[in-house]
Formats: sequence, C-alpha cells, structure tokens
Amino acid sequence: MTTEHDAACEGESISAYGTARATVEDQPLNTDDLRKIDAYWRASLYLCLGMLYLRDNPLLRDPLKPEHIKPRLLGHWGSDAGQCFTYIHFNRLINKYDLNAIYISGPGHGAPAILSQAYLEGTYSETYPDKSQDIAGMRRFFKQFSFPGGIGSHATPETPGSIHEGGELGYSVSHAFGTVYDNPDLIALVMVGDGEAETGPLATSWHSNKFLNPITDGAVLPVLHLNGYKINNPTILARITHEELEALFIGYGYTPYFVEGSDPASMHQAMAATMERCVLKIREFQDKARHTGTAFRPRWPMIILRSPKGWTAPRKVDGHYLEGFWRAHQIPIPDVVSNPAHLQLLESWMRSYRPEELFDAQGRLIPELHELAPKGKRRMSANPVANGGLLRRPLDMPDFRVFSIAVQDAGGTRADNVPTLGHFLREITRRNMQNFRIFGPDETQSNKLDAIYDVTQKVWLGAYFPEDADGGALALSGRVMEMLSEHTLEGWLEGYLLSGRHGLINSYEAFIHIIDSMFNQHAKWLEKCNELPWRAKVASLNLLITGLVWRQDHNGFTHQDPGFLDVVANKSPNVVRIYLPPDANCLLSVTDHCLRSVNYINVIVADKQTHLQYLDMDAAMAHCAKGAGIWEWASNDMGEEPDVVMASCGDVPTMESLAATALLRQHLPDIKIRFVNVVDLFKLVPHTEHPHGMTDREFEALFTSSKPVIFNFHSYPWLIHRLTYRRPAQHHIHVRGYKEKGNIDTPLELAIRNQTDRFSLAIDAIDRIPRFCDTGSGVREILLNLQFACKNHAYEYGVDPQEITDWQWPFRDTP
Amino acid sequence: MTTEHDAACEGESISAYGTARATVEDQPLNTDDLRKIDAYWRASLYLCLGMLYLRDNPLLRDPLKPEHIKPRLLGHWGSDAGQCFTYIHFNRLINKYDLNAIYISGPGHGAPAILSQAYLEGTYSETYPDKSQDIAGMRRFFKQFSFPGGIGSHATPETPGSIHEGGELGYSVSHAFGTVYDNPDLIALVMVGDGEAETGPLATSWHSNKFLNPITDGAVLPVLHLNGYKINNPTILARITHEELEALFIGYGYTPYFVEGSDPASMHQAMAATMERCVLKIREFQDKARHTGTAFRPRWPMIILRSPKGWTAPRKVDGHYLEGFWRAHQIPIPDVVSNPAHLQLLESWMRSYRPEELFDAQGRLIPELHELAPKGKRRMSANPVANGGLLRRPLDMPDFRVFSIAVQDAGGTRADNVPTLGHFLREITRRNMQNFRIFGPDETQSNKLDAIYDVTQKVWLGAYFPEDADGGALALSGRVMEMLSEHTLEGWLEGYLLSGRHGLINSYEAFIHIIDSMFNQHAKWLEKCNELPWRAKVASLNLLITGLVWRQDHNGFTHQDPGFLDVVANKSPNVVRIYLPPDANCLLSVTDHCLRSVNYINVIVADKQTHLQYLDMDAAMAHCAKGAGIWEWASNDMGEEPDVVMASCGDVPTMESLAATALLRQHLPDIKIRFVNVVDLFKLVPHTEHPHGMTDREFEALFTSSKPVIFNFHSYPWLIHRLTYRRPAQHHIHVRGYKEKGNIDTPLELAIRNQTDRFSLAIDAIDRIPRFCDTGSGVREILLNLQFACKNHAYEYGVDPQEITDWQWPFRDTP
Repeated sequence: MTTEHDAACEGESISAYGTARATVEDQPLNTDDLRKIDAYWRASLYLCLGMLYLRDNPLLRDPLKPEHIKPRLLGHWGSDAGQCFTYIHFNRLINKYDLNAIYISGPGHGAPAILSQAYLEGTYSETYPDKSQDIAGMRRFFKQFSFPGGIGSHATPETPGSIHEGGELGYSVSHAFGTVYDNPDLIALVMVGDGEAETGPLATSWHSNKFLNPITDGAVLPVLHLNGYKINNPTILARITHEELEALFIGYGYTPYFVEGSDPASMHQAMAATMERCVLKIREFQDKARHTGTAFRPRWPMIILRSPKGWTAPRKVDGHYLEGFWRAHQIPIPDVVSNPAHLQLLESWMRSYRPEELFDAQGRLIPELHELAPKGKRRMSANPVANGGLLRRPLDMPDFRVFSIAVQDAGGTRADNVPTLGHFLREITRRNMQNFRIFGPDETQSNKLDAIYDVTQKVWLGAYFPEDADGGALALSGRVMEMLSEHTLEGWLEGYLLSGRHGLINSYEAFIHIIDSMFNQHAKWLEKCNELPWRAKVASLNLLITGLVWRQDHNGFTHQDPGFLDVVANKSPNVVRIYLPPDANCLLSVTDHCLRSVNYINVIVADKQTHLQYLDMDAAMAHCAKGAGIWEWASNDMGEEPDVVMASCGDVPTMESLAATALLRQHLPDIKIRFVNVVDLFKLVPHTEHPHGMTDREFEALFTSSKPVIFNFHSYPWLIHRLTYRRPAQHHIHVRGYKEKGNIDTPLELAIRNQTDRFSLAIDAIDRIPRFCDTGSGVREILLNLQFACKNHAYEYGVDPQEITDWQWPFRDTP
Repeated sequence: MTTEHDAACEGESISAYGTARATVEDQPLNTDDLRKIDAYWRASLYLCLGMLYLRDNPLLRDPLKPEHIKPRLLGHWGSDAGQCFTYIHFNRLINKYDLNAIYISGPGHGAPAILSQAYLEGTYSETYPDKSQDIAGMRRFFKQFSFPGGIGSHATPETPGSIHEGGELGYSVSHAFGTVYDNPDLIALVMVGDGEAETGPLATSWHSNKFLNPITDGAVLPVLHLNGYKINNPTILARITHEELEALFIGYGYTPYFVEGSDPASMHQAMAATMERCVLKIREFQDKARHTGTAFRPRWPMIILRSPKGWTAPRKVDGHYLEGFWRAHQIPIPDVVSNPAHLQLLESWMRSYRPEELFDAQGRLIPELHELAPKGKRRMSANPVANGGLLRRPLDMPDFRVFSIAVQDAGGTRADNVPTLGHFLREITRRNMQNFRIFGPDETQSNKLDAIYDVTQKVWLGAYFPEDADGGALALSGRVMEMLSEHTLEGWLEGYLLSGRHGLINSYEAFIHIIDSMFNQHAKWLEKCNELPWRAKVASLNLLITGLVWRQDHNGFTHQDPGFLDVVANKSPNVVRIYLPPDANCLLSVTDHCLRSVNYINVIVADKQTHLQYLDMDAAMAHCAKGAGIWEWASNDMGEEPDVVMASCGDVPTMESLAATALLRQHLPDIKIRFVNVVDLFKLVPHTEHPHGMTDREFEALFTSSKPVIFNFHSYPWLIHRLTYRRPAQHHIHVRGYKEKGNIDTPLELAIRNQTDRFSLAIDAIDRIPRFCDTGSGVREILLNLQFACKNHAYEYGVDPQEITDWQWPFRDTP
C-alpha cells in the first residue's frame, strides 16, 4: 500500500493570509495566462454580486441608483470567491488534460459561485434561453436570484451541473464518492465548507476512500475550503494548528496540499500549480493500478484552501471587519438602499472588477475569456453525469418469478422472505456488474441477504488479515458497500443514482431514522426535478427496511421504532411510495417494481426472519398490482357483508391477524369474516391525494361502509388514521400497531404489550360485533386465558410456546 | 497552546497481537497485584459468560448440562473482555488517586461487561436485592439477562452506573463530554467501539475537546477499542496503518497512547502503566491551568486499545476463527444445547477462569478481590453523577413576568418573540452560571437569542484571532456552546442533563430532523427511567425550534420541514410535550414551565421574526395554563353557537387565522365567529391518551360539536387529524398546514401555496357555512382577487405588500 506523503509542513501559520503559500513552488501561469484567469475570476465575482444586489442596470452602464437594487436583499457572499477560484482553476486542467469532471458545491448558500460559472460557460442560457448572454438576459439572471418566482441561493435542482443542493450541510463528500464509483474516467471536484466539515456525516465521509478502487472507480478531489467562519463563529478546522490539521487528513488517508493566502496573483499561481499536481497524482495512482491490474489504496491528494471569507470584499466597513470575518457570510453590505455612502461603496466595489473590460457592448463575455471555459460536455455545468438520468440504462432484470416460493396451501408453509429476495438481488447483481450496488451498515449478512455473496463481495480497500479468508467476503472490488454510517451509505447511493446508476440500501428499521433528514432532502430534490423538463429521470432510491420492530427479542426497546413511515408520508405524493409485502412472493414482486421505477423513493418493509407464506406467485403479482385486496381463502363472508373485516398491513401483523381470524372462526363458528391485506400503504389515501389512492367506492368495496374493521398495522397505529381520515367509514376502523411498549420481549409477548397479538385482535373483533355480546363473553375469557398462558410460558422459558411459533392457517378447505 | 505529543510510533503493525506494546515501559504491577487484577478480570469474564448462557448451575458446582443453558441464547461476547479490562484497570487508579469517575460504554451490546462490574462491586445487589451476592442471587442475575421479563444486552437505564444505553451507536463521546462540563473533579472514562467510531456523530464528536475548559470542566479519557470487527466486517480504524491512526487522533487534538496485544500478563502491565500515565497527564494539564488561572487546550491523552474481539475465547471452533474475528461478536458458541462437544467446550472454557478460586462457598467474590473495587460512591457503578437526578438542583429562576411585553390592544402591537425570550434566558444564565448551558449549531445569534451575550460568551478553546474582538463573543469559558453538529450538541446536552444539570438547545426547525434518532433514544431512556424508582428525575430536555418553515424566503425549500412534531408525537405520552406559543408572553410562560419540569422532552416551536402580540402577561399565563382556549376578543359569537370556529396553533398560522377572521367579519358583518388558539398540542388528544388531553366535553366546549372548524396549523396538517381522530366532532375539523409546497417565497406567497393564508382560510370558512352559499360567492371572488394581487406584488417587488406586512387586528371595541 502506498503511503506517500509529500505535502509541505511549514511551521505554524493559521492566521496569516498575505502571500500565498503553496505546496509546490512552480509558477505554471505565464503573464498572459495569469491576466486572463484573473479576469475570468473577476467576471465571476461581478456576476455573484450582481445576483445578490441588482434588479436592473446589470453592467453598471449607468450610475448605480437605489432603484436598481432589489427591495429585499437575500443571498450569500461568504464562499463565492473561493468557490469560483477553485472552479476556474480546474477548468484550466479540464482543457489541458481533457478531463471528465463535475463540481460539487459543499458550502451552504454558495449558489452564486456556480451559477456564475454556468452562465459564463453558456450552459445557463442553453438551459434557460431567456437568461441569454446579453444585457437583457443578465438582468433577468440577476433578478431571479433569491427572488420570488426565481431560484434559491443553494445549488438547487434548477442549477445546471448540480447534483448536490447543499441546503442541509454534510453530504458533499459522500455524494462526490457516489458519483465516481464505477465511473473510472470521472473526477468529482468537491468543495467542502469548513462549516459543513463539523457535521458528523461529513466528518466520517472522508473515510470513503477505503471503498474506492483506483482501477474501476474514478477519483474525488476534495478541496477543504478554510473560509474561516460560519454564520457567526469561527470554524473548528480553521482554528487548530497546522500540525493538527495536516495530521487529521493524513489520518483520514489523504495527502493534504495547502494553498493559503489572499493576494490574488500569488494565489493563482499556487492554486494552478497545486491543482495540477493533484490531477497528476490522481492519474499516477490510477495508471499504476490500471497497468499492474492490482488495486490499492494510495494516499489520495486533497487540497486545503485557506482564503478569506468574503474574499475581495472591502476589509472593513464602518470600522467593522467584513472580508476575512463572519460578517461577510450573507449580504456583505445590507443597507445600500437607505445608506447613500454604502451604495457608493458597493458601486466602487463592483466597478473594481472592471466589468467594462470583461463583457462586450451586448453584455457578452469577451471571446478571449470565453475561450478559457471548457467546451460542450466538458463544461462542469453541462456534464451529463450531473443530469444522470441522461446516462441511466435500465437494469437488466431477471424474471423474478424464477425465485418464487411454492405455496400449496395459503398460510401452510414457512419460508424466508428477505433471504428469498437475496436470491433475486444476487441475479440482478450478476447481470449488472457496472451499474448496480447494494449498501448496508454492516447488516447485509445479518439481514440475510448473503446470497448476494455468491456472485460478488464487499468492496474493501483497507488492510487484509489472514482471517479474512474465513468468510470475510471482502475484495478489492465488489458490489456490496458496508460501512457503519447510514449517512455515508445514503450519501453514496444518492450520488450513485443521481449520476445515472441503480441501487438499494438495507438497514435496520429503528436506525433508518438516522437519515430522516437526508431522506427529506432527497425527496425535496426529486420533487423539484419533477418540475424541470430538462432533468432526465433517475432511478428510484430503494430502501429495504428490515430488522423490524416486532422481532427484537435480543436488541430490546432501543431497536423498536417503526416511525420512519410517518416521516416518509409527509413528503410529496409525487415522490414517495411505501410497500409492506406480507410474504416472500409479494416481496419479490414489489422489489421488481421498485427497481424498475424512476424518480421515487421506495420504502419496502420486510422482516428478515422466517415467515408463513400466503400467496403463490400469480396471486402475489395480482395482489401487489392491486396494492390491497380481499384474501378469499382467509375469508368466509362469501361475498356478503361480513360481521367484521380483519385487515392487516405488514408481514408480522398479517400473521397475527390471520391467527386472530382463525381463533374467531374456531370459537364462533357462525361468524362471518372478511380478510383484507394492504401491501401498498398509499392505497388507503383518497385517489385525489396520492396517485395510488383508492376512490371511496373502491375503499368501501374492501372495508365495507359500516362494519367494524380491525386493522393490524406494522407501524404506529395513528398513521392509518391519518391516511384514512377522509374516508366516510373511518370511524369503523379500529387500528392496532406499535405504541411504544417494549423490551427484550419474545415476539408474542411484544405483540401482547401492544395489543397486536392474535388474542387481543380477536377480542377487539368480538367487542365490536353486537350479535356476539353474549356468546362472545365466554370466548373472550378463553382468549384471555390463552394469552396469559403464553406470557407465562415466555417468562419461564424465554421463548414463545411451540403452538405459537409453529402456528399455521388451519383451514384447508375454505371457500 | 500545548501541543505535546509523546506517544510512541513504532512502524507498521496492525495485525499482530502477541506481546503487548505500550507507550510506557514501566511495570507498575508487582506479582501480587498482577495476580489479583487478573483474577478480578477472570471473575468478570466468568460472569459475562454466565449471563450469556446459564439459567442454572451458576458456579458450575455441578457438571454443565443442557438444562442449565437458556433455551434461547441472546447476548454479545465481542467487546466484553476489553471493556472489563479497561474498567478494572481504572478501578486501580480510582483507589490510588481517589478519583471521581464514571464509565461510559460505547460499543454495542457490551452490557455484560458493566453488569459484571456492578455486580462485583456490590452495587447491583444494593439496587436489586434479589440479585444478591450468593449463588441464588447469581443464578437470578444470570437468568434475567436478555430474557423476557429481565434486562437487555445494552447498558439500559436498569444498569446502575449507566447514563448511556448505546443501543444506537455514535454518542458515547459527546455524552461523556456532556457529563464533565462544569464538573471539574470528574473524569469520564469512555470506551469507544471501533464500529461506532465509523458513525458520523462519533467521528465529529472527538472535536468536543475544543470546548473543554481545563479549569472549570473535568476530563474525558477516551479509550478507542480496536476490537477489530463489527457484526460481519472489519472496522475501518483497525485496518488503516499505524501512522494514519496515530495522525488521525493527533489531528483530532489528542495524544494517543497505544496498548496492543493479547497476552494477558503483559497487557495488564501495559494498560496499568498507560492508564496511569494518562491520569497523571490529565492532572498535570488541569493543575497547570488551575494554578496559572489560564485555560488552554492541551493535547489531552487518549488510549487506543487493540485487543482481539472476543478476547480469551477459543481461537478457533470447528476450524473457524472465533477469538480475534467477527464470529466472536454475539453468542460465541451458539449450539451448546444440541451439540455435546460444544457444551463440553463451553464448560472447559468457563472453568478455565477458575471460578472456584474467585467465589467462596456461598458464591460471593472472595475478600482479597473484593478489596480491589473502589468503595461507596467512588465505585463507577454507584457514582451519583450517573444517577444525575440525585445531584440536580432546581434552577434559580427569575420571575419571567419581568420580561413581558406590554400588550394594550390584542393584535395591535408588534414585538420579537424569540428575542424577548433571550432576555429571560440571559437572566437565567446569569443566575445559574454553574449548571445551565445553552446549545446551538452556530445559530444562537441568528436565532436572535443574543441578549444572552450580555452576561456570557461562547466557550471556545480553539485559536483566537484579532478580529474576534469585533463581535466574536468567544471566551475560554462561557455558557453558550456552538458547533455545527446537531448530533454533538444533543449528545452534550443529554450528558449534561443526565449528570444533573439543565439546558436548552436552539435549532432551525428543518434540521432538528438530524437528531430524530437521538431524540427517539433519549425518549426511550426517559420512558424506562420512569419505571425505576431508584432513578432520580433529571431536568427535562428542552428543544427550542425556530427558523420556522413559514419564514424561509432566503433559504427556500430545503429549510421547510416542520415534521419533527410527527416524530415526537410517536413517543410515549409520559415523556413528550409540544408547545406552540402564539406570542412573546406565551413563549415566556411556556419556557418557564419547561425549565422547571423534569423527565420530559419539551419541544417549543417559536419563530424568530417580529410578530403581532395578542395577550398581556396575565392573559398569556392563563391561556398557557389551560393550553387551549377561546380568544374572546377575537370572537363575536357572544357565547352562542358560532357559524364557524377559526382555530390556530403556532405563531405565524395564528396571525393568518386572525386576519382571515377579520376579513370574514369585514365582508360578512353578520357572521358569528369563535376564535380558538391551541398552545399545548397534546390538549387535542383525549385525556385517556395523554395526561394533558381534554375530555370530549372540554373539547366540544371549545370546538363545538357540529360547527365547521377551520384549523390553521403550523406543521403538516395530518398531525391534527391524527391527534383528534377519536373526537366525535372530528369530521367537522378542516385543517390547513404545510403540505410540502414551497420555494424562496415571501411569507404570504408561501402561505398561499399551502392554503394557510388569510384569503384561503376565509374562503374555507365561507365554503362550509350553508347560510352564506349565496352572499359568500361575491366575497369569495373579492378574496381571490386580493390574493392574486398579493402574489403579483411579490413577483414584481420581491416582498409582500405593505398592508400585509403591517397588518394588525382591526377591531378595538369587540365584545
């Protein structure tokens, strides 16, 4: 393993800007290069300020007046100069080495920086023709920024070249790595804010380099922007010693190269030299691995750019620090409309970039500068990787029916749901070795998907020990990615999908909450993409949630939280789907559907233990296509109005609900029961609110309009009430689910605590059927005694009684 | 600043265990010490295995038979030996230096390790007398572990000495730091799993040392346990080079000391020497700071303990690696009941610890070993810091009424809600300089709580620059803690509260989702504590949520997510409270209540912008005490049945709802409207489901039994339906709220998108009052035109029209 480390480490210097200090001494730019690159940078900075301030007079062809200024000033200046600087210097290398690259903007609210680049490169006007490269277009380009009806101050989906909005901080590095996996030609240049670097997700995502194969994957070039300040505070990494800072990134497995200063001329030379060194290092490592055919983990290069926050702004305004201090974070001079001196200051500042030298009479960037930008798809704002739907190839899908479980008698056989899915995923993996990956936090085997390891392994560029041969499933390349960070996994997968590929995460149910916020952001991203015709659709993000609340006898209370579905249900019906397949064949059918879909987040909830099987493959496909339906074989209402509807959603609740149905039929032989199962949760919602929703007529055809419904639900019961509250028959629906009662209980004991067990459900039904108010009371007592005996058995032996764990649907000749 | 670094760095050695390699060469243990400490360790390991396996025959006084084994084997062996080892070696130093220390167990499922210590120290039997220190007690102690009706395999609240369950991973270091802030005498020994070290929250929490003052705070001694494996995978940190590992922790600001090996005798010497060195280093740094009176940030010591996973287990079983491999993670030999050879192997293994030498005839630890444990409150299992309610002193609370806003005319004045709270918090801070802290992710000033900086500053042990004097508010000690990691803040606060102090977090609403999962875990912790009479009540965890969804004109769609309340509402009604005060005086009253409460999580939702004020302090106190009530001054139903109930919950929605009420009264003079405001969200729930809930009679006294209710809600509208679904009048409640429609909109424009604006609400009312079906249609059109004009104004000028932003309640002489 290469452990090369050749960064300079010169003493302690953490406050000085002044002359640039770079890790290479070259002066790669000749005078003309330097002049032009600086002019291009000035053009960028002029555009950034224009976006923040101007609604008219875009090129200051007239003296600046208050009426040219937007009435409400919104936007951020803080990281713009450093980001433009980095972007432009990479352009030089794209041209010189014909690089395939994208740019990911980590710092918050840095959109002006990349919008200015997209505009200068022409991509913006190609995407939005009214934002043309002339004075009128520039005026519209400025005005729309952070303005109602316009665009936001993050790198939102509306931004050409962006796959990373950055509204919430912390995911830039994992997104960047996600794009380069299986993209051997790509370099993701990722600017990391020193604010976001304090977040947990970012802090661990540096370790992504232990999962990057230099032969089959591309490279990430991180630029840590030591901008120095957040909103009102210094950043931690800008206030530790140089020795600590350097050690930290060596510790993370990188060779840090420092570019530090504030003098533009020397900083240009330093950045040009350093960036070129990094690109050559990347190529060197890749060449070595690719020529020898042996993957290894080099100390990948990264850059630490220490430049003043708000770089090139006035150093002080009214005696207070602006450039190089946190006051440069947002609008640098906020009162320009009411303060004539400040308006004057702004005008002088903007004119100091000499826009008249940069844009021609029509307002177009002058040709000698336009030449600096890469061309066509080499422009980072126009790289199709950042509109990954353009590159997406559908998965080569095997016929999932091949993996089906034979079901002779409904509820009469037992099989493994998730392991069965594992066989299907194995085959998908085998057929799609370049564009499908599976992600899990050290749980793919624990979640019983290990059939996948028949055809692939876990990618691992860490050290190898002899023991690894004893079932480690590690390899230098592999389609399974495991790291104990749900944040990093989710970030990788998002990057992988947004750059045109496919994937699936598997995770324990309780801990998928760790990425609630990432889920929210991705859902919002997709929602906005739906409004943009130029954004090609990407593969859906598939979350397989297992290790479920109902089977936590060794993990206990902390592992019992099925509430992720509540978070999901808050997002737009255009982008979210939730499936709770009751058995293995339904799980196969649902997963097949999800992996073929685009622009959704699909949540599939399926337990990893062995379960009763109910539907053969044809029945499963029909059931999943409908999303909810009556199970005739478990019903005895013969198409008439039943006494009660027993309904279920989720694998474990379905078994208990069926067992309750059997108990009722055994103890009350003349009871008429209809059994309904729901696979697709949004079926419950009115069709006016979700594309999958049922009409009221369809709803009542299943649940009746007036009969009691005993609905056993996988998650918190209130979600069902929320989804069905508009149904006229809602008040007849009695829902059971997890209500935060638990410990290291046996499965039945946990169900009893939450009243989702067969006995409680049967009693619920009896209590709601008027004609059993007499006969029911004896049965009620029998059921309570059975329930009590089961609990006692668990306390004595630590397991549920055999008749519970071996329970099968007892009727074989039902209508 | 001290940058001392004296750890040894000897080459590359990441797979060898063998003879211990320590950073100091001393042999601090004489032969007798060594023998005893090893015996104590063996006693611990014996107990761990006993917990995993035995339901009877606890001391193997009889040959081991299948019937002695628990029917279902649940539990984890992986980290037990390393954790016991660390704990025991610290005991020696507690005795030698009279240390005040607690132990935090980071690795997952490591409970056997600390349960064994609590049992050996006697604390367990003191807390649970039936788990006595004799054979019968040991049998019960073993059987209850991971057994229904017993205790879990994490360090659950039932565990004496634990403040950190560790069911979810990632929070051990931030919890540890939370306990030592303002606890100058305390050392928190925190064992960090190398699995959890991969999580984002853990990865950034190492930086907590930049917020630790060596004079006024205690110290954290982290022990990174390079156990090598997670469930099925190697850990990243165990598979990077020694150079990288050492650099990483130097980068994090620590001096790492390595203890590596597997040979017990040499490992005992190495650990004893290294730990002592660390304790002396801590004392040296503290002494230096305390004697000079100048706080500084030293390179605090930390230990990297590389020992085999499952240490002391058989190296191989049936040809597969056990000790030193991931197979040692859980039950090390799972089939002992069915496999006689394996039962025999287990018996030999357990007997290899020589229990007969360790426990006397009665089953009690022999006196010479019992002497090794610290005594009384010095036992880490009995330190009152880990039952922090015992140490909690109520806050010295100023009279919040002093800070009230004068309100002459309801809805006729404007004031700042959160800034007003800032004055109250300033005074609380001033009076409670040792046991109250405020936490925020760089947002305390942005959230307009900066009045606090009149009396304190932000604690900061990073470097200082000259600019910091220009409004930086940084100091070596301070009561405000800011880091851009919601995870770390939440972890610090939890640690601070659980060790007996008080605090409050302020955060942007959308990003409080980042800690959904931590919230869940803390709620579960509190819920279990409520079942344990010996756990003294701790101060509530107070979350001030601001930067709300409705005021995001510069942050846009990513910052619009009010769904945290849905997550909160899923947790037990015993522990969660949600308040949405409509104005400044209500916010003061609610916060006063929350800061006096115990064992809750209080969520307070309040916008940071200027708002209309409605209630004078007396009215506010009465309103908050009721939690929901009729605002007579805004109603004109004169106590009769109104045509419509206009209801609101949340500050922004209340203003729109009042404006809608005014529009209706202006345009339909004979309309009768009742105005209801809800402060305490759980008032809406039936009293049978939450202690704050109203009876149906109370509910109908506010909302009527049959009149339309137009309910304007702060968050997603479905939450109101969920909370009220059992109310007979539920179908008359028409709820508006955020429904995931947004961009960089002006406040009114955003409201219009989500139909929470005054015009939409008034139209909602008209549409639901039958007697206005004719007259209403003209008004409807007027309202739609007004709405349309407002939108156009925003698109043209970027702001809402003046009559909207200046709107006041227009009726001054209402009944």
